[in-house]
Amino acid sequence: MAIRLDDREGDFEARFAAFLTTKREVSDDVDQAVAAIITDVRARGDDALHDWTAKLDRFDSRAAGLRVTEGEIDAALAAVDARTLDALKLARDRIESHHARQRPADERYADALGVELGHRWTAIEAVGLYVPGGTASYPSSVLMNAVPAKVAGVDRLVMVVPTPDGRLNPLVLAAARLAGVDEVWRIGGAQAVAALAYGTESIRPVAKIVGPGNAYVAAAKRRVFGTVGIDMIAGPSEVLVIADRDNDPDWIAADLLAQAEHDTAAQSILVTDDAGLADAVEAAVERQLRTLPRGETAAASWRDYGAIVLVRDLSSAIPLADRIAAEHLEIAVADPEPMVAKVRNAGAIFIGRNTPEVIGDYVGGSNHVLPTARSARFSSGLGVLDFMKRTSLLKVGPDALRALGPAAITLAEAEGLGAHARSVAIRMNPAE
Amino acid sequence: MAIRLDDREGDFEARFAAFLTTKREVSDDVDQAVAAIITDVRARGDDALHDWTAKLDRFDSRAAGLRVTEGEIDAALAAVDARTLDALKLARDRIESHHARQRPADERYADALGVELGHRWTAIEAVGLYVPGGTASYPSSVLMNAVPAKVAGVDRLVMVVPTPDGRLNPLVLAAARLAGVDEVWRIGGAQAVAALAYGTESIRPVAKIVGPGNAYVAAAKRRVFGTVGIDMIAGPSEVLVIADRDNDPDWIAADLLAQAEHDTAAQSILVTDDAGLADAVEAAVERQLRTLPRGETAAASWRDYGAIVLVRDLSSAIPLADRIAAEHLEIAVADPEPMVAKVRNAGAIFIGRNTPEVIGDYVGGSNHVLPTARSARFSSGLGVLDFMKRTSLLKVGPDALRALGPAAITLAEAEGLGAHARSVAIRMNPAE
Repeated sequence: MAIRLDDREGDFEARFAAFLTTKREVSDDVDQAVAAIITDVRARGDDALHDWTAKLDRFDSRAAGLRVTEGEIDAALAAVDARTLDALKLARDRIESHHARQRPADERYADALGVELGHRWTAIEAVGLYVPGGTASYPSSVLMNAVPAKVAGVDRLVMVVPTPDGRLNPLVLAAARLAGVDEVWRIGGAQAVAALAYGTESIRPVAKIVGPGNAYVAAAKRRVFGTVGIDMIAGPSEVLVIADRDNDPDWIAADLLAQAEHDTAAQSILVTDDAGLADAVEAAVERQLRTLPRGETAAASWRDYGAIVLVRDLSSAIPLADRIAAEHLEIAVADPEPMVAKVRNAGAIFIGRNTPEVIGDYVGGSNHVLPTARSARFSSGLGVLDFMKRTSLLKVGPDALRALGPAAITLAEAEGLGAHARSVAIRMNPAE
Repeated sequence: MAIRLDDREGDFEARFAAFLTTKREVSDDVDQAVAAIITDVRARGDDALHDWTAKLDRFDSRAAGLRVTEGEIDAALAAVDARTLDALKLARDRIESHHARQRPADERYADALGVELGHRWTAIEAVGLYVPGGTASYPSSVLMNAVPAKVAGVDRLVMVVPTPDGRLNPLVLAAARLAGVDEVWRIGGAQAVAALAYGTESIRPVAKIVGPGNAYVAAAKRRVFGTVGIDMIAGPSEVLVIADRDNDPDWIAADLLAQAEHDTAAQSILVTDDAGLADAVEAAVERQLRTLPRGETAAASWRDYGAIVLVRDLSSAIPLADRIAAEHLEIAVADPEPMVAKVRNAGAIFIGRNTPEVIGDYVGGSNHVLPTARSARFSSGLGVLDFMKRTSLLKVGPDALRALGPAAITLAEAEGLGAHARSVAIRMNPAE
């Protein structure tokens, strides 16, 4: 049974604030273990990878080889049934054409003084893509991470995926092939992150690492940040549904449960101005839970972190949504656009009753890697820009230098930087 | 005396590779100390800030007040001499007009199926700006961080700056006023980062923290990452100058020393195809060092980390430049544009003999906050996008849902996510 909040009650603000700060993840203290693994991989390279893989994944990578061969990927692709393969291709194509629009433009212009300014975008040369093992090993996430990297122009896209007890989801390999991944290695955990960041005898280092992972992977990414780039630290998923009275409670319940089934730490929130809908959705959730394959996970998430918030007026939902800053925001109201325009903090907005968040998970074309745990206040979903970097350009001629030079010298002197001042002055007055 | 490398020598690759991995920063192990400070600020708020400020900055903030008053900022501004104030204003205006061009465009379009996709950019509501105390307290850096934030539309820009022994550079306050900073607090170190991330009784939390700092500040930013956004972890500065024979050695030497005077860990590198220029620059460096106010710092940097690389041909300089991935790259050759076009990894490129990097430090208009320590391989200089975030938009109507639904259901089933499948199916077949 999810928590109920009502903004007509006197303690609403206190209860909502407490709800916002509820910690959904147990942050295992894995940092020391991760530091030791990274040090070991830097010191011993492939040998360390083999040893950690034997220990943590119960898999003999010395015998099997660290790298997944092209033949294995061919076989995995051949084993996928036609309907699933078509669906993966449709998803791949839609992600590709949407992300192609995100390619940024270079710029170069001269200002009134004749100073030329600009920037140029280039792709990151080599990127690592972490794919979790086990039940969270999703082919759709491979597409969502890999396709934008290839659209950006990344030359070398290197996937790592652990194979606990030797198991590897063939759909993940199929998605890797469809997305254009260049190398696949059967390693995971902090050891895989270390190998990507520092390289080993077999694996050349990359410049950036993206993709979700468990607490070890997150801690390892945090540690190697600076040596390589990293994407956001992904937390458990969440959905916020804003709904008016004219919704089918079963549709809303299904959307809440689609989020809840991911993880016991996932969070599903309904905000509505209609107590009747709130009750009906709650009943529908209980009913649907009974027939859900992952019902236990979804029930735990709904019980521990689910919420139904009753508001006097749907316009009050906007500031609450901005404070929640949900990864996924569904706006299921009669006239959604004015509300869409008012929301500031959300990873993605799904507009109208016919846009379940799940379409965005797979085939909408937009990216499903989105900021979790309130981080939509300051960060964005994954996109092409995450695989590129911008080089700033500046060109000054003799006249512009004479115009700007004195101010630069004044500021350099004010900051006590004599060589800075000289570097400009010497060009203005070659006799110096 | 800087190191000399020559690509005609047999051990060049080994020596260059070793040079690339030279660690320039002593990474003090401050992590435990920082963790304790953050915990304390979260637990005790303002009291903790006062205590750490008394201890680390030897300053009684209980008596003086944590916040710098508007009156104090007025007084600082009034104390700045007219020439410096004009130079600051010129820098502010040029940074503002250049960065205004970086404001990103929103997008919304319908694809062939009638699916509406798009995104909307919004400014981060509140941003913290860390400004170091002491000699690295640069008014130009205040402008470079604050102006783009305001161009982006950040509502609340909160500056923190430590006042060791009560000293506060009035130029920093003047720059804050000119750039539109909304609040200034006289705190620094890990305690200031903690206050910005979690808030105290006096200081409301922000959503992102930018700006350079010492090892404590860097460790604290790494720790609060996730709770708030952070910018890059800034390392010591570096310049790479690619020069042909037709350069005035004194100009090049001045540019190398402008970098070296920042910090004993700064790095200045000259790549040239002309041994005569190499010798002449080296002699000019030694000569100029004698009259430099910060000569000791610059001499140590040049001795420990400076380098002159002789190449057979200037075209060989490009792959070396890409491996160095310098924060600042000057291209001082007769025809620089073809070389500019070939470089992939650089924070900023300064084009031609009349564009000393120092112009970009102050009045070029481009940003001087750039990726250091080879991170230009995967990251970009500071810009307006760093103060905004993108919300993804998706809108599907009944027809498009029927077209895309089956593939989404197939993929959801392949991933074992029953509620995902139901969330789509229930809308395609309302009888379900």
